[in-house]
Amino acid sequence: MPRFTLGELAALTGGRIAGDANRVVERALPPAESGPDDITFALDLRAHREFLRSKAGAVVLPEAFDRDGRDAIVTSDPRIALAAILGAFHPEDRPPPGVDASAVVHPSAKLAARVHVGPNAVVERDVTLGEDVIVGAGSFVGAGSSVGDRTRLHPHVVLYSLSTIGRGCILHAGAVIGADGFGYTRSGGRHVKIPQVGGVVIGDDVEIGANACVDRGTMTPTRIGSNTKVDNLVQIGHNSEIGQRVIICGQCAIAGSTTIADDVVLAGQVGVAGHLSIGRGAVAAAGTGITSDVEPGARVAGHPPMPLEDWRRAHAALRHLPRLRTLVRSLQHRLDTLEGGDSPPVAPPAPSAEE
Amino acid sequence: MPRFTLGELAALTGGRIAGDANRVVERALPPAESGPDDITFALDLRAHREFLRSKAGAVVLPEAFDRDGRDAIVTSDPRIALAAILGAFHPEDRPPPGVDASAVVHPSAKLAARVHVGPNAVVERDVTLGEDVIVGAGSFVGAGSSVGDRTRLHPHVVLYSLSTIGRGCILHAGAVIGADGFGYTRSGGRHVKIPQVGGVVIGDDVEIGANACVDRGTMTPTRIGSNTKVDNLVQIGHNSEIGQRVIICGQCAIAGSTTIADDVVLAGQVGVAGHLSIGRGAVAAAGTGITSDVEPGARVAGHPPMPLEDWRRAHAALRHLPRLRTLVRSLQHRLDTLEGGDSPPVAPPAPSAEE
Amino acid sequence: MPRFTLGELAALTGGRIAGDANRVVERALPPAESGPDDITFALDLRAHREFLRSKAGAVVLPEAFDRDGRDAIVTSDPRIALAAILGAFHPEDRPPPGVDASAVVHPSAKLAARVHVGPNAVVERDVTLGEDVIVGAGSFVGAGSSVGDRTRLHPHVVLYSLSTIGRGCILHAGAVIGADGFGYTRSGGRHVKIPQVGGVVIGDDVEIGANACVDRGTMTPTRIGSNTKVDNLVQIGHNSEIGQRVIICGQCAIAGSTTIADDVVLAGQVGVAGHLSIGRGAVAAAGTGITSDVEPGARVAGHPPMPLEDWRRAHAALRHLPRLRTLVRSLQHRLDTLEGGDSPPVAPPAPSAEE
Repeated sequence: MPRFTLGELAALTGGRIAGDANRVVERALPPAESGPDDITFALDLRAHREFLRSKAGAVVLPEAFDRDGRDAIVTSDPRIALAAILGAFHPEDRPPPGVDASAVVHPSAKLAARVHVGPNAVVERDVTLGEDVIVGAGSFVGAGSSVGDRTRLHPHVVLYSLSTIGRGCILHAGAVIGADGFGYTRSGGRHVKIPQVGGVVIGDDVEIGANACVDRGTMTPTRIGSNTKVDNLVQIGHNSEIGQRVIICGQCAIAGSTTIADDVVLAGQVGVAGHLSIGRGAVAAAGTGITSDVEPGARVAGHPPMPLEDWRRAHAALRHLPRLRTLVRSLQHRLDTLEGGDSPPVAPPAPSAEE
Repeated sequence: MPRFTLGELAALTGGRIAGDANRVVERALPPAESGPDDITFALDLRAHREFLRSKAGAVVLPEAFDRDGRDAIVTSDPRIALAAILGAFHPEDRPPPGVDASAVVHPSAKLAARVHVGPNAVVERDVTLGEDVIVGAGSFVGAGSSVGDRTRLHPHVVLYSLSTIGRGCILHAGAVIGADGFGYTRSGGRHVKIPQVGGVVIGDDVEIGANACVDRGTMTPTRIGSNTKVDNLVQIGHNSEIGQRVIICGQCAIAGSTTIADDVVLAGQVGVAGHLSIGRGAVAAAGTGITSDVEPGARVAGHPPMPLEDWRRAHAALRHLPRLRTLVRSLQHRLDTLEGGDSPPVAPPAPSAEE
Repeated sequence: MPRFTLGELAALTGGRIAGDANRVVERALPPAESGPDDITFALDLRAHREFLRSKAGAVVLPEAFDRDGRDAIVTSDPRIALAAILGAFHPEDRPPPGVDASAVVHPSAKLAARVHVGPNAVVERDVTLGEDVIVGAGSFVGAGSSVGDRTRLHPHVVLYSLSTIGRGCILHAGAVIGADGFGYTRSGGRHVKIPQVGGVVIGDDVEIGANACVDRGTMTPTRIGSNTKVDNLVQIGHNSEIGQRVIICGQCAIAGSTTIADDVVLAGQVGVAGHLSIGRGAVAAAGTGITSDVEPGARVAGHPPMPLEDWRRAHAALRHLPRLRTLVRSLQHRLDTLEGGDSPPVAPPAPSAEE
């Protein structure tokens, strides 16, 4: 494990030193696990409280936080510093160029000079792999696919034929790109498959999570824009168009032929129906079931979705609904009495007769 | 890429020609991307509007739609024509028979003459593979399993031992058939595993999506009927019995020991609890949480489920619930005043005290 | 298939014989499929009714159930007997020790004497595999990982580097352990990846379902305690701490940095937001969306969650909400009339104006 002086780390982060620039740190750890030889991170108020209780020798924090007399890197963006410092302590372990003897690479595939193809990987005909591409152990790159420079396929990624992946992407284990979209038509009392021939096009600097699925389009490609991040076990249906810098958290499902504009955020387990348009910068809370278009910048929750604040209030009220019904019935009886004396001539309507 | 005359394509679809049967088309594309050398599809009103704005040279459409003077295939079922025409332009790329040198096939396995076993695939003992079966690269077929004629396992499919797959099926990458059902019993303060030995039996013409899971039964097989279509990332629990022609969309989860009758449709992210019965032809909207039996032909939504129309009305009303509570409280106070004068002798009940 | 006398089976289960201890049984089956040569299981009232209608020659049942004159094993815990008897009829098929010729094992890996490494599996540098470990066909064990005695990786499991798996675990096909947590920070108008270097530590006797994902921690490990059971397609986010004997059913998603105490049960499709604490023994019903801490022993449902009983009542009432609104409006009009005569001077508030 490498060791760094605080000064060296500060240089990576753009922050300034408060205290001893020559202090040596050996590990980067969360506040609760850090000791005198470690640097830790006060990213928010909670982490700052934990830092104050910790024995951390050094800390990264924003200007507004107290460094408690300890050596510190003070920065306007401690999360960027976290990324830089973790990268320094744990440089990515990229395997050296070369094709493992157990890999099966078709002679027509075009591999750049520094490509790594891992054990038992399979690269089919007419594939193009850019410079510094890594094809992890057991991964499969189908015929006619292309993978841009520096992109890494972790072990057990599957690219069906005619998948186009940009530069600097990361695809995690078990991700399946380009499987057939879910398209059938009913005829003669049975489901007939509609061929799915449109492929997938993924931009640059995209990350696709473990066991996530991006289906190929029916006639034209399913598309994912650059710098978009897709978490584990997400389903992206055929003919979808996902913009740039979109965040799609774990287990979201996007049905098909839906357009998601740039900078949208879908929290975990969101479902999006087909043939919709989600406007730029919209945010859907976890578990939202999106059944109609969403305006740019909207914040929605619920199923069907409503503005996030309305959802909060409506669901807080929901718990009291049974009591509200009881109250309304008592008001109804009191009103009957006021209107008609002690013995109303007709029975009041029974709103809950069928319960 | 092949080229076709409109007449050749019409013959594949059962439609009739309107215009020039000798027009040559080079690609089949959606309206918005199609040009003078292409054929497109006016499958519905929206697509028809896009066709009218497009430069498509030819179109497939139903009798009721205007062909705008362009050459057309007119048919009562344009989606069936879409399937046929896409199949003509993009015939399935089936690898030739043979066992790749890198595959590991147990000598006791029985392979029909035209079986393809791809690179790094594994076929265990006592497996039977029917005629024209494809075992994709890296796929695994466990001991004692059988795969019917023409069935295709895409790369990285896993069949645990004793899985029986019918004819003409398609299993997508990462699908796992026959993993242990989730069965434990608590004893001595810990969970004890109940062996799962029942296997899986899948009918003919079934499609299983990427990274979908079908668990083996406890004592008898989990079953999926013919022509049923299962989308990506679906979970089918042990001892389930899924009928024929069932549609199970992405990320549905069926708990265990549940019976789903023929022609049921489960939209995306539906959850079905265990030991239930879903009647023939029932439809569950996306995100439905099914916690009790569903009648044949019912259309349900919500969690717990209710009739789809009730769900629509209830959830439209939900957004207004906070205002309704305020209104009821004001009515209560007005009634207090009417009944008892300006100063009621007792405080009114406080329905929201604990909020 | 082995055959057993009832006496032999009773000895495995701790139960007592009622009837003929020498009766030979050939199969263990559910009531509906069992015949005179079979033993079946009356685990609950429903199964007991099916047993009474069946031709089963022998039965396992609790003291309170009528054995209908048939030979029986009577036991206080028939589910434990089910586990033992299924295990007797279907002993686990464990492949013999040895490294398949097609596997790729780094010379620095330390394999105990009786390890099995299946066809096309990959074991990287500095891996430790304990005694009787099985690495299934095509599985991948990343650099520096360790796997405890008797643990079985079914085919196509992926352990990223620095994954630590305890003893006696079962990992099902497609499970991905140690992929990068979903961590980014926004800078300069784009998402910047935060390295995820914390690894995963899994205890003893843990089962991880097919295609489930457990992400590596950011700086310190994601942890799963002993005897915890994780079903298929579950997502466990980075930095989570899952206790012992936790049950996590299919398609649950746990966001990140959340602590789940011992003996918690999450039914299917539950979502848990990040940075929460779920108390010991808490139970969440299927589909619960957990957005705040949960008390030990609580039973919750809904999204946001509420006590299970409140949820049942609130959702039963929800269906009647549209009618309740109509009733309240009619009460309002009647009150207007009572207060102000036939023509109220001001129009009543219109609660549904924006509907």
